[in-house]
Amino acid sequence: MPLNPQRTIDELKELRSLTSDENGAQRVAWTDTWLKAREWFASKLKGLPVEHHYDAAGNNWVTLPGASEKCLLIGGHLDSVPNGGWLDGSLNVIAALEVLRRFNDEFHGKPPVTIRVVDWADEEGARFGRSLLGSSAFAGTHSIAADRIRPDRDGIKLEDALRRGGVEIDRFPEAAKERKNAAAYLELHIEQGPVLERLNLSLAAVLGTKGVERHLITFHGQEAHSGSTPMQDRRDALAAAAKLALEIRHIARKHPDAVCTMGSVKTFPGIVTAVVGRCEATLDQRDLDPQILAQMFREAQEASHRFAEEEKCTVEWSRIWNIEPIAFHPALLDLCEQAIREVSATSHRMPSGPLHDAAEVSRAGIPTVMLFVQSLRGISHNKIEDTREDHLALCVQALDRLASKTVTWILQK
Amino acid sequence: MPLNPQRTIDELKELRSLTSDENGAQRVAWTDTWLKAREWFASKLKGLPVEHHYDAAGNNWVTLPGASEKCLLIGGHLDSVPNGGWLDGSLNVIAALEVLRRFNDEFHGKPPVTIRVVDWADEEGARFGRSLLGSSAFAGTHSIAADRIRPDRDGIKLEDALRRGGVEIDRFPEAAKERKNAAAYLELHIEQGPVLERLNLSLAAVLGTKGVERHLITFHGQEAHSGSTPMQDRRDALAAAAKLALEIRHIARKHPDAVCTMGSVKTFPGIVTAVVGRCEATLDQRDLDPQILAQMFREAQEASHRFAEEEKCTVEWSRIWNIEPIAFHPALLDLCEQAIREVSATSHRMPSGPLHDAAEVSRAGIPTVMLFVQSLRGISHNKIEDTREDHLALCVQALDRLASKTVTWILQK
Repeated sequence: MPLNPQRTIDELKELRSLTSDENGAQRVAWTDTWLKAREWFASKLKGLPVEHHYDAAGNNWVTLPGASEKCLLIGGHLDSVPNGGWLDGSLNVIAALEVLRRFNDEFHGKPPVTIRVVDWADEEGARFGRSLLGSSAFAGTHSIAADRIRPDRDGIKLEDALRRGGVEIDRFPEAAKERKNAAAYLELHIEQGPVLERLNLSLAAVLGTKGVERHLITFHGQEAHSGSTPMQDRRDALAAAAKLALEIRHIARKHPDAVCTMGSVKTFPGIVTAVVGRCEATLDQRDLDPQILAQMFREAQEASHRFAEEEKCTVEWSRIWNIEPIAFHPALLDLCEQAIREVSATSHRMPSGPLHDAAEVSRAGIPTVMLFVQSLRGISHNKIEDTREDHLALCVQALDRLASKTVTWILQK
Repeated sequence: MPLNPQRTIDELKELRSLTSDENGAQRVAWTDTWLKAREWFASKLKGLPVEHHYDAAGNNWVTLPGASEKCLLIGGHLDSVPNGGWLDGSLNVIAALEVLRRFNDEFHGKPPVTIRVVDWADEEGARFGRSLLGSSAFAGTHSIAADRIRPDRDGIKLEDALRRGGVEIDRFPEAAKERKNAAAYLELHIEQGPVLERLNLSLAAVLGTKGVERHLITFHGQEAHSGSTPMQDRRDALAAAAKLALEIRHIARKHPDAVCTMGSVKTFPGIVTAVVGRCEATLDQRDLDPQILAQMFREAQEASHRFAEEEKCTVEWSRIWNIEPIAFHPALLDLCEQAIREVSATSHRMPSGPLHDAAEVSRAGIPTVMLFVQSLRGISHNKIEDTREDHLALCVQALDRLASKTVTWILQK
């Protein structure tokens, strides 16, 4: 049987009906619904000459052995955020399975290189606030000490939740064994942003994942009575934060792909009758160019100190998290563009703002590229997340072409 | 015995040791600690030829009958906010008692007019969010329907808390009886702001209480992924609110005594990785001039709509509360300035930003004036609230002089 993109769409809908409720997808990692999704996926392997196992970090591996031991990895994740969309993560896993089936059929069970589909464990980090969990264990960048006692909302520790799922955090490093013979990694994903829709394009080759600087910024002023404190006597912590909320937009707009976001502002005491004495704000800055990212971070810091001084406040910064920009493999990027051009009129190159498991795989030194398909309204992590069905069919075809080109590239290396 | 301001200071300290803990004053209305403060106050009346009762709204009345039935009222409140200061409210009640003692001594138990000290019930509204409760019942501006089922933090209804204190909300209108023969009302209070300290002045005559416009403003934008949403595609509700937070300061600064405060900002979903889809902000605007207040309200509304449009958001306003400016009595203001000049070098006139029971009494048509004494650092509603002891002594003297002048004025009317 040739590639059947409609089957991918049908299977996505099947998974949706099995693991969603009226609020959206509920495949949160380490929950029963997630395990149900994985069982459903395993049921789709019947009749295929594949080996199937879960590694020491809970990643889900399906291997179709080829003439060469060199492996082409194609991956995604079946886990979702709570009240999530039907495509984020699952599209990649189910499309990869379709590509594996095509290789199996075309080469009568023996493709030129080994084809492996991977369903990464806990990409979203929705429950424990630690994303890319399984792929970081695979890449060897994971810190057991940092994650072991992370609590979920109910106080259950990550370590214990994993154990209930049959995964021992102390054995995480063993997941690195799966890197053996890995020659390339491909990941298809919905864009999760509005760029392709605005450009009226269906597909894009992804340059890499942007680096992220994520900080908590606290302005300290002086709580004061809103009625009795003249304007000139105030030390208003909110005013300093408001200036920064507007300034970070100027900082970002100097660069074509950079973004800066203040996503949370908290005011203390936070009552209608008091000048804000303390204001906590979060900052998230991203760019693919490490120098631009560093410059934006520096500019935001400088601005915060200037605004604090103007408002007779003080300011302190505390890093929440950061990651460096990760550029994908140039040769695979070219192949990805060729594949896109073969199935649609125009190709496009763009960075990914969101992080993906591909970033971890690339950090492990495995040549990697991603393929984006248009998202409607740029919305994801929401039940209204959607992509046109003709675009879904197109992206499965493009992934398949990219896989074939990558197999050839692996053999030529 | 002549007036003894040191006794007022000593009694304030006595009350503090009885009704405070390490976090400050705990005389929250309708609590046991508040009742203890009132019992302590009642114990100070022993030996005085006064009538003492609580009215239908729980206001605490001490009456020294005079030669004339016309009454001079002098009042304050023994209730405090939680973790409050030692002076806010109590200074007025205890200083008024000292003035009553002086009238009693000077006129051998029969002053020219009747002198009444009032300790208003629940001025702060700390527990049920309804300030000036007792004085509004006195003034006849209180709405039983609006307050009956107000809940405290534990879900206890105002009506039930009052009943446990022996007060029936349905009998509130009977408190209006206390207005009989009321010829003037005087209230001494700490400034609760930094103006007198900055001007190096001890006392001020209060022009009136500023009117207040208090609103909840909600900006609606679009929640979006902080990584995948380009700057130009955002509808950032926080950006619109930040512009307004800065603009209200320009709006206020056009007028010498006006204040505008954004005291609370809440962001939704309020996470580091999402553009703010909804932002709720509070606005509190105050001025003594009703036209200035109306202009500031109009300008803030216009600005919010302009900023919403600029940020591709929408905005809605919902009034939390408002009160008109209340100007005190011109003749009493003159007497107040004279009294201040007799005890200190310089007088000063200023509006009150905070509301006081005096506003309700004035609304009831009773000639009213207030006297302010300097606050250190402008801080109140906090355990560090304080006033220099020489200033405390001075304000008791000024209140006493003002009371004598007012008695003469009542008799001449």
